[in-house]
Amino acid sequence: MGGTNTVFGIVDNEGQVLSKGSIKTSTHADINLYIDELHSELSKLIDTVGKENIKGIGVGAPNGNYYSGNILFAPNLPWKGEIHFAKLMTDKFGIPTALTNDANAAAVGEMTYGVAMGMKHFIMITLGTGVGSGIVIDGKVVYGHDGFAGELGHVIAVRDGGRMCGCGREGCLETYASATGVARSAQEIMKMTTKPSLLHNISLDKITSKDVFDAAMCGDEVAKEIFEFTGKILGECLADFVTFSAPEAIVLFGGLSKAGDLILKPIVEHMEKNMLDLWKGKVKVLFSNLKEADAAVLGASALVWEM
Amino acid sequence: MGGTNTVFGIVDNEGQVLSKGSIKTSTHADINLYIDELHSELSKLIDTVGKENIKGIGVGAPNGNYYSGNILFAPNLPWKGEIHFAKLMTDKFGIPTALTNDANAAAVGEMTYGVAMGMKHFIMITLGTGVGSGIVIDGKVVYGHDGFAGELGHVIAVRDGGRMCGCGREGCLETYASATGVARSAQEIMKMTTKPSLLHNISLDKITSKDVFDAAMCGDEVAKEIFEFTGKILGECLADFVTFSAPEAIVLFGGLSKAGDLILKPIVEHMEKNMLDLWKGKVKVLFSNLKEADAAVLGASALVWEM
Repeated sequence: MGGTNTVFGIVDNEGQVLSKGSIKTSTHADINLYIDELHSELSKLIDTVGKENIKGIGVGAPNGNYYSGNILFAPNLPWKGEIHFAKLMTDKFGIPTALTNDANAAAVGEMTYGVAMGMKHFIMITLGTGVGSGIVIDGKVVYGHDGFAGELGHVIAVRDGGRMCGCGREGCLETYASATGVARSAQEIMKMTTKPSLLHNISLDKITSKDVFDAAMCGDEVAKEIFEFTGKILGECLADFVTFSAPEAIVLFGGLSKAGDLILKPIVEHMEKNMLDLWKGKVKVLFSNLKEADAAVLGASALVWEM
Repeated sequence: MGGTNTVFGIVDNEGQVLSKGSIKTSTHADINLYIDELHSELSKLIDTVGKENIKGIGVGAPNGNYYSGNILFAPNLPWKGEIHFAKLMTDKFGIPTALTNDANAAAVGEMTYGVAMGMKHFIMITLGTGVGSGIVIDGKVVYGHDGFAGELGHVIAVRDGGRMCGCGREGCLETYASATGVARSAQEIMKMTTKPSLLHNISLDKITSKDVFDAAMCGDEVAKEIFEFTGKILGECLADFVTFSAPEAIVLFGGLSKAGDLILKPIVEHMEKNMLDLWKGKVKVLFSNLKEADAAVLGASALVWEM
């Protein structure tokens, strides 16, 4: 479930997405009407395989809490306060439902079907509109005391004079290492630079991370510098994350990871530079190998195996 | 085991330290001679209860690795390279031996006998000559992929222009929030300040954290400012640690924690200020309630219950 769309699908026990569909998340101000539409659409898919063959429903949602099954104060969703989402789903569908936040679901998906298969210790970082994270220790997602562990998009990456974050604080990693963060970096850097750049052709408040990527792929030096800056800040933070849980790998997923080496090289360089000697050269940084279109559905569905 | 002394004891299943002893760590350049002396001294204690009543030996040592039972490149120990300490102990004593680093041992002790009893999620921070940490998630110490997880003294607290750390990098939390760090802060602040202070009576390169504490207890404003500065940096880092594992509590232990409210107040103030709204007011900051003289022995011994 995202702020705009909800994508759903039927996944078999080998991680094949058998069928898929989607509805708009944002059109229903009433959660019950949303559940009604979801039920109506998803039931069509369920009927094709038979309800008796559905082991459970897994949901990845912003601010989803694994312990309670509730969605709490999600700024990008139309429903305010605390939504008892797992219970509403279980009641409506008559199928057991597990819920977690989208980045935790991505981590479970990566561990079950993706590049982290067989790993017991890794950190998933989702680089989308925001920055999310799912931390796996001893083969299990870390939920913490309250179910909200792993909000690494909100560690303070720039302590003094950092950028304003949607969470109300300043300097959060998310304000630098997300697609939005890249756009903000582009605006800041373009204001200052006198170097020639393709990005001068775009009005400052319209530049997107996609524009920066396209320019960088054409060899634009300023665009590359923007990715270098982004990768440096993310790499520095990753070094601190390693200090915490000593993972085998960091797995990157989401829009920004499409930038490939443009972002990977500075990430690895600055992570290595900032790590304790004992970890240098030993922690892999990997891109997810799941198809982005399927990854959300796969991740959420994999929650069901943990039920 | 510390760089200077090794303290050992017999602990019963209720956490009573039945007897204690110590030898010098630093006098034996040869690890085998150290083990010989330890065997000779510890055997006296073992004989008083009978070897058949000893379930195991637990060791907390700098750079101790739980998985391998080895001590790796510990800068403050006389033995270089990789020491197969648990194996050497098991062979010598004929008793199974478990080893971990000192801060992890402290966390196990706190969970088994101390203020974290019954907690499933907490972070132990040891504020001694350096800063160590032991992270507990789901009731288990986090060792990570390689056994070295939880080196939170080496997250970068001050990103640009931070203090030189013994690890070779700059700005580590340990260079600010340890006893040594407080002394360094005192030197820096005393150089700059024109305010009256008892600390002016001590030559700059001789000031210790104890001097700062004594002055602060006499109401010295500059000394209080030094603790305020220390607590601010630690509190900011703790807020980031909460983002990672969402613990029920942070438990502080070691020399600096004797400063009580002088250090606790700024820690809590700046941790609260820097946390995401969802955690504000919900994460306890507690001092260990174990007697410092016993805590190291209790923590190490508690490892045996996990064997």
